[in-house]
Amino acid sequence: VVLGGGLVGGFIARTLAVQDGAAVSLVDRDREALTAAAAAAPVAIRSGDLSQPGAVGKVVDDADVVVGALPGHLGYRALEQIIAAGKPVVDISFFGEDARALDEAARQRGVTAVVDCGVMPGLGGMLAAHLATRLDEALELRILVGGLPVERRWPLEYRAPFSPADVIEEYTRPARIRINGGLVTQPALSDVELIDLPQVGTLEAFNTDGLRSLLHTLAIPTMVEKTLRWPGHAAKMRLLRDLGLFGTEPLELDGTTIQPLKVTARLLDGVWRLRPGMREFTVMRVEVSGVRGGRHHWERCDLLDYTDEQSGDFSMARTTGWPAVLAALALASGRFAALQDHAGIRFPEQLAQDDELLGFIQDGLARAGIALSFSSRQADHS
Amino acid sequence: VVLGGGLVGGFIARTLAVQDGAAVSLVDRDREALTAAAAAAPVAIRSGDLSQPGAVGKVVDDADVVVGALPGHLGYRALEQIIAAGKPVVDISFFGEDARALDEAARQRGVTAVVDCGVMPGLGGMLAAHLATRLDEALELRILVGGLPVERRWPLEYRAPFSPADVIEEYTRPARIRINGGLVTQPALSDVELIDLPQVGTLEAFNTDGLRSLLHTLAIPTMVEKTLRWPGHAAKMRLLRDLGLFGTEPLELDGTTIQPLKVTARLLDGVWRLRPGMREFTVMRVEVSGVRGGRHHWERCDLLDYTDEQSGDFSMARTTGWPAVLAALALASGRFAALQDHAGIRFPEQLAQDDELLGFIQDGLARAGIALSFSSRQADHS
Repeated sequence: VVLGGGLVGGFIARTLAVQDGAAVSLVDRDREALTAAAAAAPVAIRSGDLSQPGAVGKVVDDADVVVGALPGHLGYRALEQIIAAGKPVVDISFFGEDARALDEAARQRGVTAVVDCGVMPGLGGMLAAHLATRLDEALELRILVGGLPVERRWPLEYRAPFSPADVIEEYTRPARIRINGGLVTQPALSDVELIDLPQVGTLEAFNTDGLRSLLHTLAIPTMVEKTLRWPGHAAKMRLLRDLGLFGTEPLELDGTTIQPLKVTARLLDGVWRLRPGMREFTVMRVEVSGVRGGRHHWERCDLLDYTDEQSGDFSMARTTGWPAVLAALALASGRFAALQDHAGIRFPEQLAQDDELLGFIQDGLARAGIALSFSSRQADHS
Repeated sequence: VVLGGGLVGGFIARTLAVQDGAAVSLVDRDREALTAAAAAAPVAIRSGDLSQPGAVGKVVDDADVVVGALPGHLGYRALEQIIAAGKPVVDISFFGEDARALDEAARQRGVTAVVDCGVMPGLGGMLAAHLATRLDEALELRILVGGLPVERRWPLEYRAPFSPADVIEEYTRPARIRINGGLVTQPALSDVELIDLPQVGTLEAFNTDGLRSLLHTLAIPTMVEKTLRWPGHAAKMRLLRDLGLFGTEPLELDGTTIQPLKVTARLLDGVWRLRPGMREFTVMRVEVSGVRGGRHHWERCDLLDYTDEQSGDFSMARTTGWPAVLAALALASGRFAALQDHAGIRFPEQLAQDDELLGFIQDGLARAGIALSFSSRQADHS
């Protein structure tokens, strides 16, 4: 049972439905989204408003495995109900609450709940944990990730399949990073640097609050996550933010009150939305550096994925959806120790300790055409 | 009688009041502005709302010469009343209406009405007309002008003593320029170029709609007026404009309607307003090029004026106010043919044909510490 038939949830349902022996049902309150999914793949559809109390518990009743792909504000309460129903689950709603608060309940019900299982958070964390094992001592983790339109067009040189308000939230929420073992909070959009990436060209990278669970699951003393955009985007977003145009404090004006962010988000929507037929790509670089054999050493993994020209599926749906699809299949198979032997809340980076499971996920991504490119280098002896 | 005691009107009243034999009265509805002017110079003050019908006619009744320094939206109707009262007048309200519509009335009343008599429009036009006479054939006029803060501070690197909405209007109104004898309309903020200016450094220049009367008074085939700002400002303003944040069409939002410009102007106000104690400067370059003695030739005049450290008067008040002060004194003296022999609407560039009057204005500016620097160069024979 897949909860939520949006851009990514719909992709996950369609993709799971064509796997051997799978029977998938998709639940959403948007009938149009359901119809589109059912037209593209053998997906059973069920219309329902999952924001209603108890609604989630009912629709997962006959599920073997659940995938949660609801909007962030519904995610935590849905997960709570799935756990209470005793169902193994993979979640990509990226909710704001701390999933660890549900760990005890999941353990008691014997439920494995994999949360934050998209591209980043998700695959990026798995790769970080895996690369760290290749070093004697991991000292620094850098994750750079972004979803971008191929066409750079004024004024934003950016488009996304989600609403402006969702992305703007990443531009205002302070970024928590770790420096030499200490937690440091930086403003979003800070520490802008230019990054040259093969095939892509030069992008800019800036701080966003994307480390999430890695801040407590990985023991690497310095960890940074940055978002990638076409150069110049951060300065534009900082301008709007610093002028107060992303503000949520109501402003009194002509006898009425208005949140500036609502005006800005409405005005941006037209130039912001990625529409069917537009080409985009997802790029991610995960790099862990530290000591190996007495020398400074770097381990890196690069991902670059474009809109699927045949299906029209955006890379943002593919790269976010496939890790969840593969984790759900792994859960359903019952054959991976990292999932079977560990009831409770599980973050993707914790699954990467299971080489067999990591191999299963890498093979699945490769079959989906999402190539991971590994490389390493080391400092010369001085 | 000076109408309007704002930043420039107050400066004009105070400056006229200390001239030999002058008796000045200042009219405004803002008592604080009146009190400040009277405290600084022997200015008679009179409180009154000049937006009321017939109010202007009454207060100019005993004037020898009137200076109009009202907000733009009141300027035209005030000028109409001053002319009807038969009073010579200098106006710097820079109203949007075409002043030539009042020419016939001024002629009939035997009134000389000098309009648009600030720094630009105003002094810039006088200098353009004068420089053109130094060539056998004037082919191109370029006027670059800007008022800027000394301190370049994020996010705008700009401050003004007027409200954001007044300046934003210059960033949205299309610019009318003349190219090879033909009228061309360009978007505001277009054709951005970098300009190196002595003592100032590198600024950017972009099209604004500042030629006004020069489009019909000067016969130079190519004429361009550009506004100067610290580099990067135009791109920021284009971003806000092109996203719709300067829009005046009401937007429906949460059951209310709001003009985006009102939200933006309110949010900008804090980082926009030039406050007492801040340093700023006004920079203007007027350049006419064409043929002289068979060679291509350039005639140029540069102006650079800073906040008066002793009085605290902003250069924007000084450079806009002094041309009006000097034109008013010239009118009152009765000794310049360009004013005495020409009843009707007169633009500053038309006064420059009178060498004696131009000399009077240049001498006055020099005594006020506003230096004009003339230079010329010519192409080598090939």
